[in-house]
Amino acid sequence: MSIPSLLVFSLLFVSTYASVNDFCVADLKASDTPSGFPCKNPKMVTEADFVYSGIGKAGNTTNIIKAAVTPAFTPQFPGVNGLGISIARLDLATGGVIPMHTHPGASEILVVIEGTICAGFISSANTVYFKTLNKGDIMVFPQGLLHFQINSGKGSALAYVSFGSPSPGLQILDFALFANELPTELVAATTFLDVAQIKKLKGVLGGSN
Amino acid sequence: MSIPSLLVFSLLFVSTYASVNDFCVADLKASDTPSGFPCKNPKMVTEADFVYSGIGKAGNTTNIIKAAVTPAFTPQFPGVNGLGISIARLDLATGGVIPMHTHPGASEILVVIEGTICAGFISSANTVYFKTLNKGDIMVFPQGLLHFQINSGKGSALAYVSFGSPSPGLQILDFALFANELPTELVAATTFLDVAQIKKLKGVLGGSN
Amino acid sequence: MSIPSLLVFSLLFVSTYASVNDFCVADLKASDTPSGFPCKNPKMVTEADFVYSGIGKAGNTTNIIKAAVTPAFTPQFPGVNGLGISIARLDLATGGVIPMHTHPGASEILVVIEGTICAGFISSANTVYFKTLNKGDIMVFPQGLLHFQINSGKGSALAYVSFGSPSPGLQILDFALFANELPTELVAATTFLDVAQIKKLKGVLGGSN
Amino acid sequence: MSIPSLLVFSLLFVSTYASVNDFCVADLKASDTPSGFPCKNPKMVTEADFVYSGIGKAGNTTNIIKAAVTPAFTPQFPGVNGLGISIARLDLATGGVIPMHTHPGASEILVVIEGTICAGFISSANTVYFKTLNKGDIMVFPQGLLHFQINSGKGSALAYVSFGSPSPGLQILDFALFANELPTELVAATTFLDVAQIKKLKGVLGGSN
Amino acid sequence: MSIPSLLVFSLLFVSTYASVNDFCVADLKASDTPSGFPCKNPKMVTEADFVYSGIGKAGNTTNIIKAAVTPAFTPQFPGVNGLGISIARLDLATGGVIPMHTHPGASEILVVIEGTICAGFISSANTVYFKTLNKGDIMVFPQGLLHFQINSGKGSALAYVSFGSPSPGLQILDFALFANELPTELVAATTFLDVAQIKKLKGVLGGSN
Amino acid sequence: MSIPSLLVFSLLFVSTYASVNDFCVADLKASDTPSGFPCKNPKMVTEADFVYSGIGKAGNTTNIIKAAVTPAFTPQFPGVNGLGISIARLDLATGGVIPMHTHPGASEILVVIEGTICAGFISSANTVYFKTLNKGDIMVFPQGLLHFQINSGKGSALAYVSFGSPSPGLQILDFALFANELPTELVAATTFLDVAQIKKLKGVLGGSN
Repeated sequence: MSIPSLLVFSLLFVSTYASVNDFCVADLKASDTPSGFPCKNPKMVTEADFVYSGIGKAGNTTNIIKAAVTPAFTPQFPGVNGLGISIARLDLATGGVIPMHTHPGASEILVVIEGTICAGFISSANTVYFKTLNKGDIMVFPQGLLHFQINSGKGSALAYVSFGSPSPGLQILDFALFANELPTELVAATTFLDVAQIKKLKGVLGGSN
Repeated sequence: MSIPSLLVFSLLFVSTYASVNDFCVADLKASDTPSGFPCKNPKMVTEADFVYSGIGKAGNTTNIIKAAVTPAFTPQFPGVNGLGISIARLDLATGGVIPMHTHPGASEILVVIEGTICAGFISSANTVYFKTLNKGDIMVFPQGLLHFQINSGKGSALAYVSFGSPSPGLQILDFALFANELPTELVAATTFLDVAQIKKLKGVLGGSN
Repeated sequence: MSIPSLLVFSLLFVSTYASVNDFCVADLKASDTPSGFPCKNPKMVTEADFVYSGIGKAGNTTNIIKAAVTPAFTPQFPGVNGLGISIARLDLATGGVIPMHTHPGASEILVVIEGTICAGFISSANTVYFKTLNKGDIMVFPQGLLHFQINSGKGSALAYVSFGSPSPGLQILDFALFANELPTELVAATTFLDVAQIKKLKGVLGGSN
Repeated sequence: MSIPSLLVFSLLFVSTYASVNDFCVADLKASDTPSGFPCKNPKMVTEADFVYSGIGKAGNTTNIIKAAVTPAFTPQFPGVNGLGISIARLDLATGGVIPMHTHPGASEILVVIEGTICAGFISSANTVYFKTLNKGDIMVFPQGLLHFQINSGKGSALAYVSFGSPSPGLQILDFALFANELPTELVAATTFLDVAQIKKLKGVLGGSN
Repeated sequence: MSIPSLLVFSLLFVSTYASVNDFCVADLKASDTPSGFPCKNPKMVTEADFVYSGIGKAGNTTNIIKAAVTPAFTPQFPGVNGLGISIARLDLATGGVIPMHTHPGASEILVVIEGTICAGFISSANTVYFKTLNKGDIMVFPQGLLHFQINSGKGSALAYVSFGSPSPGLQILDFALFANELPTELVAATTFLDVAQIKKLKGVLGGSN
Repeated sequence: MSIPSLLVFSLLFVSTYASVNDFCVADLKASDTPSGFPCKNPKMVTEADFVYSGIGKAGNTTNIIKAAVTPAFTPQFPGVNGLGISIARLDLATGGVIPMHTHPGASEILVVIEGTICAGFISSANTVYFKTLNKGDIMVFPQGLLHFQINSGKGSALAYVSFGSPSPGLQILDFALFANELPTELVAATTFLDVAQIKKLKGVLGGSN
């Protein structure tokens, strides 16, 4: 096989290469679209775009929930843009809690790396599914449903949670209800919580009105 | 144009007809699938399968929320199965409230037919968007986010809400937290609500533990 | 709970907030994409972006069809961009007709608010499904199929139609055939309509050739 | 490398094999679902399921349109079920026409194999796009829009048309309007066609009422 | 019907026209997105955007594989952008081979226009499905699986292959393994091929390391 | 709030509950569909359906690749059916290798739990992206592209890989080429490998012909 024939071979397929759309590393400076961010120029993409070390160390758990969520979603890890997947790290100190929350945009799988976690979700039919998970156990949480994770062991716990979207979203119930300017009377009217309870938690979480 | 040529014309296309998949009226007796219910035999489908009168009259609002949600989702209206859309009717008596809730599976558009409604939602970024809607106004609620509707007028209110899925789901916050057997200590740990508050609402809504 | 611990709590989640993709209000000045328009900067989004009053009043029905369609699709109501849903208002004066048309991009649900409407669609299998709808009745029209609505009552009629796409499209049969420069002989050859009939309707609807 | 180590190797991956979902050859005896037919048992699938000769010969064009459409959609070629693609063959004798029609479920690409074809479509914006295509030319027709193909050459013509769905559907305008029991007055009211014209075509195409 | 009423009719629908999203001809100068390229201004779109003659003539098969693939994907034929479909032409001289390859982004249907082709694919379950195809035969290749086409007849062969995506991608096995800088020892470790074999093919195909 | 009013409240929403489609635990005895398996009766679903311990212990790595892949796809973990996500465990003993392979149905994220892994993938444009990953590092592999993982450290390595589909598929290159009855001459013709090389690997991997 001679060099000339090789060149012909290469040239033949070259127009095809231009149509490659294997990946679409996010250009975070451009405007987002409903399907994700516009793509960084493929010629400027390197292996560094597909690797991320930012969830490699424990988040700071010296806070009121004794826990930390460290995401690798599109804004932190632009390589997942358009690929239908992302991941986050959960660190729970002793007594730590990931409070009741939802991901509006994706289902989640949790795998316990270390410690013991009591995790659960509540269905639209109002049924509760919860269980104590040990090292190596996995649990799936369907899209959009309220769920939680609690360190139910004696030491700290570590888990990774994966999502079927690069932008699963995260709505933390207490923040949604108590950490903004939603008027107390509206919260009371729509949740049946007592006004005193609402005002107390607004105080803790920085809400007003 | 003779009758014989017509017959030939008809026969030519007949094999194509067998490939019709315009709609898929749900066979509710069959098992559901991730994309919806299996289809009723197309030969048995009539116009009655595509029309529904069940949301034509007001729901009963003589209850604690002074409101009623009457859905036309796949189980009530099998004709929407597989078509990516559904609708429901909201009736709010004076003072009525559709409490804080989410739809895990679809975004929603509300149109006010009668009365005045204060409606809002809270984003993942914890921002509140709410506004008073008058007759003819519409509002859109993005998928999976906590939202609510309150009758803020003097008389009763009526609205229709449409969804981009035949099975949008409905998770009512108070029911999820207080109307099942989720242990009080787990609710407390994951919501920061006081135990007394939780027990009070579990009492009202029929929850245990 | 002290202020410092609160701050730590807030900071922990702040990087997550940047990944929010709950909604994507259309920036109509930017170029459209296959999934919809690029998103307006989320920081500039307010509740006004999610509310629209433009379909709150009746369209002008003093025209040949005695009817009006008033859409709230992405161009009129940018808040629905990327959310898989939209809505329009149908006004039909006495004798009004929404002529035979299709929506290439979405299925539709119609709810009758006022009056009596005879509505129907035709399947790929060439079967007709039509029925007279009264106030409160709903009907679903599968994506891409020819359908129509006629005011079959004595007074005017009002309906809302919802779609499972923010850009369902609208192809009105008569406009497609007779209101453009498609040559008469091509229309005749592809529809079997008489040339005189075609020329007559081209005259009415402003077509040429 | 010994036989024993090979066996271990094989066994290790065997559980993975059970999760294969590469294809889903339609079991046409089962009920359809919104995503397509249930799958034939993979163990019974052979190469014959992925190959089809039924569009290899010309359709019968001795009919009023002097043309034939021979589809390879899921019902004819179950191997495409769930794979998002299908194909059909167009034969046009001299003067043959594929009349105005839509595919509600997919866009189409046509490639001319033989002869000369004048093809076109009309957009929602009412613009006509049509052109004469010669051997080797391709044209794309967006989903759900009215389009047509006419043999504009001297001899017969052959084309293949591919679709981005295994069940693209096919609604032929004249059949939808004139070959069923849709009452003449409804056709007249929704198309503005003259009653005489409608009755004439209903006569030709076998419609009633 | 008077001219004035016609004008009213036209004006009524004009706002709807602005929401048209029937197609999205690629603006190749803009940045790609996960759903495809931004759209060319619809006002500048003409029929030329939907027609392509570039796959109308045979590719050059005087190369080592005695074959040529000529694609009409988005970069070559911007009219398919966002429409979920594309096509390519395969030319195989006597003895020609389209080597083992995958399309990561779409399933494929092949139709033989001329000659005899032996084509096949291998499933995830490691089963081989292959068959000799004659003129007019079609074969479907599920997304992402290794497949090949060989001219098994005496003369040249021609086929068209359609894809359920405007950007199906194309990964040619030999190029992936031997035509880049992937170190020989990594290729050896991950394919079990002998180092000599790898170096030989790297030599032919221009790989290094 | 009295008990009677509570009952009314509960009954009002009960019809809504029937429309729940939060999840669809696979009924593996039923036939698969293009969107996944039919759903197990929701009334029979318990928390056990959402939790899986099967990937909690190391796979057996005493084999020729010194590695093991242990999947939790739909067949092993029916709870992920229809939820767009799954996970697997990779164990690599010292010198272990997950050989060159693709997942036709999903992109993948790998997180290193223990040890050091050299991982990489090759794009359609024939570019290689590979890097050495340490504990806590993550890497994303786009759908359908050839990729590999090698234990490049001194001890054993452990990683979890998540997928954006409950059935991502797995095609191992060597198995596809050498572990079945694909004739040696076809492998040679489509891969340019030497016949001796092919026969050697067919011998090791159990292939014939």
